[in-house]
Amino acid sequence: MSVETLSGQSEKAYALLKEDAQKILKLIEVQMANLTMPQCPLYEEVLDTQMFGLSREIDFAIRLNLIKEEDGKELLGKLERQLSALHEASLRRQ
Amino acid sequence: MSVETLSGQSEKAYALLKEDAQKILKLIEVQMANLTMPQCPLYEEVLDTQMFGLSREIDFAIRLNLIKEEDGKELLGKLERQLSALHEASLRRQ
Repeated sequence: MSVETLSGQSEKAYALLKEDAQKILKLIEVQMANLTMPQCPLYEEVLDTQMFGLSREIDFAIRLNLIKEEDGKELLGKLERQLSALHEASLRRQ
Repeated sequence: MSVETLSGQSEKAYALLKEDAQKILKLIEVQMANLTMPQCPLYEEVLDTQMFGLSREIDFAIRLNLIKEEDGKELLGKLERQLSALHEASLRRQ
C-alpha cells in the first residue's frame, strides 16, 4: 500500500475514533445532567457497554494497521480520564 | 486510493469481522454447553454486549468504506440466525 493512501485511511480512522469517543463523553454528560445518581447501576452499564464498543473499534483499527496500538490506548485512556473527571465533578455537586 | 489497495484492505476488514463473528458464536456455544439456562440474564447480557461490540466494528468498517453496508448487515444477520438456532437447539435439550 502506498504511504499516502495508508496515511489517508489512517487519518480517517483516527478521526472517526476520536469522534466516537466524543459521543460517549457527550452521552455521559447528558446522563449526568439528567440523572442525579452516577452510582446508578444503569449508568454504569451504559458506560461499560459504550466503552466496550469503542475498545472493539480501536482494536479493529489496530488489527488493520490503521492506527498504532499506543495511539489507541492513549485515546481510550484520555476518555477514561475525562469521564472520571466528570464523575468526580458530579459527586461534588451532590 | 487504487482499486487493488482498497480491495486488499476491504478483504482484510471483512475477514476480521467474520473471525469476530465466529468468536462470538464459539463463546455462546461454550456458555450453552456449560450453563444449562439460556434464559439466564447473565447470558443475555454477555450476548448483547458482544453483539453491540461487533456492530460497532461493522459500522466503523462501513464508515471507512471498507465494507458495503449490505454486507455488514448480512454478516450480523447471519450471526443472529446462527445464535437463535443454537438457542433453540439448547431449549429442546432441556
